[in-house]
Amino acid sequence: MSLRYLGQTLAQQIDVELMSPTAGCFSIDQLMELAGFSVAQAITKVYSKEKFPRVLVCVGNNGGDGLVCARHLHHFGYKPSVFYPKQPNKLLYQNLTNQLRNLDISLINNIEDQLNNSDLVVDGIFGFSFSGSIRAPFDEVIKTLKSSTIPIVSIDIPSGWNVEKGNIDNAGLEPEMLVSLTAPKMAAKFFKGKHHFLGGRFISPAMEKKYELNLPEYPGSDQCIRLN
Amino acid sequence: MSLRYLGQTLAQQIDVELMSPTAGCFSIDQLMELAGFSVAQAITKVYSKEKFPRVLVCVGNNGGDGLVCARHLHHFGYKPSVFYPKQPNKLLYQNLTNQLRNLDISLINNIEDQLNNSDLVVDGIFGFSFSGSIRAPFDEVIKTLKSSTIPIVSIDIPSGWNVEKGNIDNAGLEPEMLVSLTAPKMAAKFFKGKHHFLGGRFISPAMEKKYELNLPEYPGSDQCIRLN
Repeated sequence: MSLRYLGQTLAQQIDVELMSPTAGCFSIDQLMELAGFSVAQAITKVYSKEKFPRVLVCVGNNGGDGLVCARHLHHFGYKPSVFYPKQPNKLLYQNLTNQLRNLDISLINNIEDQLNNSDLVVDGIFGFSFSGSIRAPFDEVIKTLKSSTIPIVSIDIPSGWNVEKGNIDNAGLEPEMLVSLTAPKMAAKFFKGKHHFLGGRFISPAMEKKYELNLPEYPGSDQCIRLN
Repeated sequence: MSLRYLGQTLAQQIDVELMSPTAGCFSIDQLMELAGFSVAQAITKVYSKEKFPRVLVCVGNNGGDGLVCARHLHHFGYKPSVFYPKQPNKLLYQNLTNQLRNLDISLINNIEDQLNNSDLVVDGIFGFSFSGSIRAPFDEVIKTLKSSTIPIVSIDIPSGWNVEKGNIDNAGLEPEMLVSLTAPKMAAKFFKGKHHFLGGRFISPAMEKKYELNLPEYPGSDQCIRLN
């Protein structure tokens, strides 16, 4: 039985169920911590801190996974910087941002300048809830990233892609690596980059069965697994 | 400069600072998730799931680390059961317990019966806040565990030990493995078991410097490191 690729509605349904107080009972803090950690760990499997020390993490409106990823990358010995132009007025995100400040991780304003001093980009701009057109300031951000040759790691969905149909009008990023979370989304079938990983090792067997996810077996205590 | 062993007051101070909204800015959910994961990962380094599949996790009043550890052990392929006789009426612990129920992890009532069907015990009964004498029902639990030959992994402090002076009246457990969290407590100097690990890879360099912790460098993306 092969791995299931989720449509947008099902992805949202699973997310809601994980955090429902009568179902998964997870807090968003827990899930973000595990998801962000799994992305950071997946990066260590492909991009060494010696060759790719300077990681520019680009974070969208609710990009907690990217903020957590940046923190763990710092602990792993990378030198992350974070571009986070639209910071929501919510305690959760303020705390995650303060955790970065406590590590002296730079929160940068100008992505073009920073790109010249980066070895790797983490794309945590849009996730599986994205639909419609790319709004400012991320339209310019994505254009800038598209014109760069620095390898990109996208979290869950390459930014600008239709969550089910992929990079339909070529408006989105073409990452070298994709880290799907929980289960890959349908767009991941159109991913042509070198490295496809899965992270988010917190689905119960009952939930896996209910949604026929057919997840692979993660190795050891790893929080990520290579899919290609 | 050698690793610092914390007294009880300093351990509490660091804990408060990590969760202070004007300092560390961590939520308890985040810290428990990372701490419990680090314990589970440390266990995989010593006790394989093939030889030690059945893990009895004993959890005290506020033993969130033990609950999280049990969940990750399940995902790693172990067969944990959980003895959790005093469950506080707090949403955080209820959610962590429901996360175990969702994995069909047994919450058992009789530790003696379960011990006969276990290969390993995780001691998450008392932590660095413990002082005074061992109160019911944990007095009997610790007696039962002391009379068993099944190897014990203690989380942060072997239960029954004085946090600074160790197993002073021989009332406490003598674990085979100790997983210190954040930084070892003074009692860990008296640990004579085979395996001493450190977990809780979330201290900022600034905080490490402020408290002169002299933490070791964790390898790769590991959340634990062997100290002996």
